[in-house]
Amino acid sequence: MVQRKVNEDLQSERNKGTFNPEELTNLIDGGADKTKERRELVDFFLRDPIFQDKVPPEYLSYVERYEDAVRKSCLMMKKINEWTEFKKTGATVDLYQALLGGLLGSALLKDGMPFALHYVMFLPTLMGQGNIEQQAYWIGRAWNCEIMGTYAQTELGHGTFIRGLETTATYDPNTEEFILHSPTLTSYKWWPGGLGQTANYAVVVAQLYTKGDCHGIQPFIVQLRDEETHMPMPGVKIGEIGCKLGMNGTNQGYLGFDHVRIPRENMLMKNSKVLKDGTFVKSPSDKLTYGTMIFVRVALVKGIAACYLAKAVTIATRYSAVRRQSEIVPGEPEPLIIEYKTQQYKLFPHIASALVMTFASRWLWNIYNIVTSELEQGDLERLPELHAISCCLKAVCTSDAAQGIEECRKATGGHGYMTCSSFPLTYGLATAAETYEGENTVMLLQTSRYLMKAWHQAKGGISLTPMTSYMIDHNLANRSPWQNNMACLHKSFRQVAYGLIKDTTEKVYRIVSTGKQQEHVWNSCSNLLVQCAEAHCRTFLVDCFYEEIKTVNVSPALKKVLTQLCELYAVYHLLKKLGLFLMYSDVRVGDVPSLQEWQDKLLEDLRPNAVTLVDGFDICDEILNSALGAYDGNVYERLFEEANRSPLNAVPVNKSFHQYLKPFLKGNI
Amino acid sequence: MVQRKVNEDLQSERNKGTFNPEELTNLIDGGADKTKERRELVDFFLRDPIFQDKVPPEYLSYVERYEDAVRKSCLMMKKINEWTEFKKTGATVDLYQALLGGLLGSALLKDGMPFALHYVMFLPTLMGQGNIEQQAYWIGRAWNCEIMGTYAQTELGHGTFIRGLETTATYDPNTEEFILHSPTLTSYKWWPGGLGQTANYAVVVAQLYTKGDCHGIQPFIVQLRDEETHMPMPGVKIGEIGCKLGMNGTNQGYLGFDHVRIPRENMLMKNSKVLKDGTFVKSPSDKLTYGTMIFVRVALVKGIAACYLAKAVTIATRYSAVRRQSEIVPGEPEPLIIEYKTQQYKLFPHIASALVMTFASRWLWNIYNIVTSELEQGDLERLPELHAISCCLKAVCTSDAAQGIEECRKATGGHGYMTCSSFPLTYGLATAAETYEGENTVMLLQTSRYLMKAWHQAKGGISLTPMTSYMIDHNLANRSPWQNNMACLHKSFRQVAYGLIKDTTEKVYRIVSTGKQQEHVWNSCSNLLVQCAEAHCRTFLVDCFYEEIKTVNVSPALKKVLTQLCELYAVYHLLKKLGLFLMYSDVRVGDVPSLQEWQDKLLEDLRPNAVTLVDGFDICDEILNSALGAYDGNVYERLFEEANRSPLNAVPVNKSFHQYLKPFLKGNI
Repeated sequence: MVQRKVNEDLQSERNKGTFNPEELTNLIDGGADKTKERRELVDFFLRDPIFQDKVPPEYLSYVERYEDAVRKSCLMMKKINEWTEFKKTGATVDLYQALLGGLLGSALLKDGMPFALHYVMFLPTLMGQGNIEQQAYWIGRAWNCEIMGTYAQTELGHGTFIRGLETTATYDPNTEEFILHSPTLTSYKWWPGGLGQTANYAVVVAQLYTKGDCHGIQPFIVQLRDEETHMPMPGVKIGEIGCKLGMNGTNQGYLGFDHVRIPRENMLMKNSKVLKDGTFVKSPSDKLTYGTMIFVRVALVKGIAACYLAKAVTIATRYSAVRRQSEIVPGEPEPLIIEYKTQQYKLFPHIASALVMTFASRWLWNIYNIVTSELEQGDLERLPELHAISCCLKAVCTSDAAQGIEECRKATGGHGYMTCSSFPLTYGLATAAETYEGENTVMLLQTSRYLMKAWHQAKGGISLTPMTSYMIDHNLANRSPWQNNMACLHKSFRQVAYGLIKDTTEKVYRIVSTGKQQEHVWNSCSNLLVQCAEAHCRTFLVDCFYEEIKTVNVSPALKKVLTQLCELYAVYHLLKKLGLFLMYSDVRVGDVPSLQEWQDKLLEDLRPNAVTLVDGFDICDEILNSALGAYDGNVYERLFEEANRSPLNAVPVNKSFHQYLKPFLKGNI
Repeated sequence: MVQRKVNEDLQSERNKGTFNPEELTNLIDGGADKTKERRELVDFFLRDPIFQDKVPPEYLSYVERYEDAVRKSCLMMKKINEWTEFKKTGATVDLYQALLGGLLGSALLKDGMPFALHYVMFLPTLMGQGNIEQQAYWIGRAWNCEIMGTYAQTELGHGTFIRGLETTATYDPNTEEFILHSPTLTSYKWWPGGLGQTANYAVVVAQLYTKGDCHGIQPFIVQLRDEETHMPMPGVKIGEIGCKLGMNGTNQGYLGFDHVRIPRENMLMKNSKVLKDGTFVKSPSDKLTYGTMIFVRVALVKGIAACYLAKAVTIATRYSAVRRQSEIVPGEPEPLIIEYKTQQYKLFPHIASALVMTFASRWLWNIYNIVTSELEQGDLERLPELHAISCCLKAVCTSDAAQGIEECRKATGGHGYMTCSSFPLTYGLATAAETYEGENTVMLLQTSRYLMKAWHQAKGGISLTPMTSYMIDHNLANRSPWQNNMACLHKSFRQVAYGLIKDTTEKVYRIVSTGKQQEHVWNSCSNLLVQCAEAHCRTFLVDCFYEEIKTVNVSPALKKVLTQLCELYAVYHLLKKLGLFLMYSDVRVGDVPSLQEWQDKLLEDLRPNAVTLVDGFDICDEILNSALGAYDGNVYERLFEEANRSPLNAVPVNKSFHQYLKPFLKGNI
């Protein structure tokens, strides 16, 4: 694109910034060297014209969009080779993560990538669940892309509840084969990316039957298509699942088996095994397979929630510093819409939110690595805690992000509804994460199960993990006078989590003690239990932000702004859930007006730095891919240019005029 | 589609219903005769195979989708002629409303209709703002579809704030013509439906200049395209604006003028006039043009908010009575997901919400007709009240509906993400209404401007309208002990509105009295002012539901269920905004557990009637257009059939395998 003059209003916003946005960028990346690396990678891929579209994919037919996604995926792989040659290093898992998920990946393939599951699930599963022989045989073929794999777990009838999967793998000791079968329509695999027309192999999760017994779900490597002709293998019924709200480039598919035989060696046997005679040997621990699920959830908090929300709020904030509308004082010039208090309230909390998700995911990633290495030494102690926090963080962050993206879109009025704003695709990718990899309500209930157990242990005098230690701080039940400061805010979130968990646990036990079945009581109290998990998660997020500010090594100017954001984040969520804070925290009805004023003051204080903050997110124009959010703020010029890329504008009169419209207007239809 | 056996689980839910769904249908329609009429119309149009798609539009290219929309629009017009011949009546405005907006329209043209604005805005504007000569000339041509019109008001740079429009119409007394001109890029018209490639005429709203003075915005009839060739007229720059989140069948366009001359007679002169010599004659009242805006907002509450929410909750509720997942008690069969309290909480409030919007829109429609006839007799007294309530109802109902649709989608897990669930298109149509026809926050602030004035009048002893009479009920400021009943609930909503408006008004006046400029104070308090308007609106909605139940003539069985829904609606919104109720109403912290239990009890009580309730919405399968929500509950069969309609599944191997994928896998790329 042509270099253009920066919109004057936007430039004058930049001039107001009190800190250097580069400092924030480095903080987010984890150091100036990391920023440099990231930019080098982004430039290498995005400045290459082969990835640029003459006609944006949304104008193509569905089949053309798939073909374009395959074409670009192959180009991307070629480009990865060029990159590793250029950098004189091998390709790393981090590199594939950056390219297949998150912002860079969605800039290259805007609506999902048909090869993604090969790298994100197929290869990691081979590595994590194959024994040494299996790894030796399969990983090389997969890593070199001689075969293209996917991961087929979810079925038409079963998603989050994987124990309910129906596909069977029945061992036949006579031939030393497993027979894969789909006994019902609902047992068809449904959703795996790349499964439709792309992959020729899959890891298939099925109920293992041997010697007449079911041994639960196990992973199997299955060839789906002929390597030469790409025709489906005998007994394999395969196709794609059709158009969706988003992710239409991922080629999600369905898969059914009609007594398909695979060799015994194709069951991944690092953990559980089936011997030649059909004897089942159980895995030493069920919890070993938790690792991958937690890994994916950790990745979602950063790669989906934090990144896409940062993208959306960048677009909306810049647009708000260009768009002028209506009047505050009659007769005066139309103000920038960022002047409106209602607009500030719609945007700035999401700047804070994108940041806290970044901090939380970094913390989660560190813990994940520690717990994983403990796991390998057989120490499972911290796994439940990690599992519990990863569940609620996945739920709360994906939900905050999706809602935030929609708020940002609506804050840009009608223009946000245009595909070229980038909001529709961004929302499509973010909201998908609310239901995949563990539906959010189920995730929250898993966390609250842990919380109730922890509460019970705390009462029994068993020491708690750092994340739940507030449960033994019984001072939280006492109420002190409220003051508008971060320490009080911080305490109030703990008070709410403490109070909610206490009341809910006591309620559950009280009803159980009347003789009702515990599971039904759990269900009847589940809307409260969801609130407990949310409160626990919000407390953790506020903690993360607060700790980050206390320990971060940045200039006083940036630290001041980060502190304002942290306070805004906390006050905003307090006022959003005011009822709970009036019930459980030091906040009294009489304190509410001053809290509202504090919120307004923080919005006002942050106002001059809003554009500088989103500049600090450092999301380049090619990734933003938005007429409303480009760095130069030439909003209207870009909207006009984007409109003229519509193929409908290629000719002055569309053929439907002659075919239908003219005969109709002339009364001949 | 083939008639299929009803899913047994869904049937058993139907068997649990305690009332006859037909009774609810009649109540919603406004009588059994109205139900009959509606069904006859729906059958006549939807059972005609000419409207059925072999390949659903989402698989076509963007240009093909437009061409298909034009084709179907012409067929629809032909079908309307057949209908009027069959019924031996003329076409009525009601008929066009049913066919162009709301559920039937979106079943025929699933993503918007390029002719809609011809009927919804072009014709009504000619009727409402043309003088007798203009009506005589233009209405006939437009009604007979000799010309196809649109309504061009919004510009690239200005939406809701119409006084800021930049397009100019300058009168030239020498030739007795207006010169239409677009002085800037931001003055281009942007968004009008049908403007891109369909319409050949438009009502264009422009700033009128005559004798050197600007007289504000006025409507002009402008020919855009040649009636024979459809080529744009000289000086007319025209095109479509590109792909959007939804409404991609509406052919929204842009329009610029380069000194385009039109005869003086083309200014619509029922209200203001320009005489031959250029003298401007002002309209007797500015408020006369409010009528159309209010009309459109009234139509949105019913046609978009109530209808689309009813559609979404029908789909999600039926799906929840078919889908089995997870376990409540280990070892027992997987329960229907409607058994989960969290699922009931996600769905049932939206059943109530769709109903109350129906009642509110009916009430609003009646008032609209009364006020319009008063207006014609020069009585403007009730116009501000109607304007105020229509603004906040438009905002609150479209927002409730869009959010509700997304909640329903997410409550169906991943499958709701499929286009064939119908959720994505339904959301696209509903959320558009949050920003068009008056952006929602602006709407709420218009209402709060009225509320503050009313509060001021109440203090000055001026009598208030029925809708704001609670402002003089100073007992609302006194707090009595809470009881779980509808009277207390009803009062508590008034208390919140009363308290919020009181505190906010006092705050505004207090700050103004310190010498700050009123307009800036207004802006600084605007987040509170938004809450005032929302509280006023919610109070009105609770009132509507409560009044409906008190006066409705239905069986005791249905009345009981309606009462439960009304209570659920109120308790749900109370608990959602608990903070405000603890601040302003009789509810105390100690009352909260019993309110939560009441909510749970209501969910439980409504549970057996959930499917019967949505059956009572009487939305036929062709309109639902959803694999998840069909009457027979054959969810999985339909998902599978829909997948196989994807053109990607037409051949076993897509050509991209040979073109890109195979060379890549064989290492040749």
